[in-house]
Amino acid sequence: MILEIVDISIDPAKKADFEKAVAAGIADAIAPAKGFHAYKLNAGIEKPGRYILMIYWETLENHTVDFRESEAFPRWRSHVGPFFLQPPVVEHFELVSQN
Amino acid sequence: MILEIVDISIDPAKKADFEKAVAAGIADAIAPAKGFHAYKLNAGIEKPGRYILMIYWETLENHTVDFRESEAFPRWRSHVGPFFLQPPVVEHFELVSQN
Repeated sequence: MILEIVDISIDPAKKADFEKAVAAGIADAIAPAKGFHAYKLNAGIEKPGRYILMIYWETLENHTVDFRESEAFPRWRSHVGPFFLQPPVVEHFELVSQN
Repeated sequence: MILEIVDISIDPAKKADFEKAVAAGIADAIAPAKGFHAYKLNAGIEKPGRYILMIYWETLENHTVDFRESEAFPRWRSHVGPFFLQPPVVEHFELVSQN
């Protein structure tokens, strides 16, 4: 399993609309994608308008190839892209340990 | 519940030792702390030596006051601090939505 972390900044005045748009975009474009497992949307406490979106994929390629090269990617961006103050930073991680 | 995210960079040559030090430091200093719920250590795929440490606390103050002002904080840093290439970036988040 791979964790995609997306670092997002939006106008804090639009938080409620953005949070609705993420839930709608996940349901519409990401949850049906091959290899999708789960997501979590986290709102920053110190910096209002900062979000960390976590998406769990079965494999790296399920995100970088299967999803990104599908029509679902621009469909996802049509939901949330208008809120981005700058291009989001996307990185991938592997779980090392937990309790 | 509050999510603490710690952004850590270390020398990739020391990954194995760092991962052992985190597990030991969590068990020694963080898991016994008031309000501690769980942790996950995630290793960056694109940037070797980059880690995201997630720690879940019952309240923000359980981390920022109860833990940070206790003797457990320097004890935690004694395990992992020697690996840090730069001071880690620490931020807190609230869960907005998930599936």
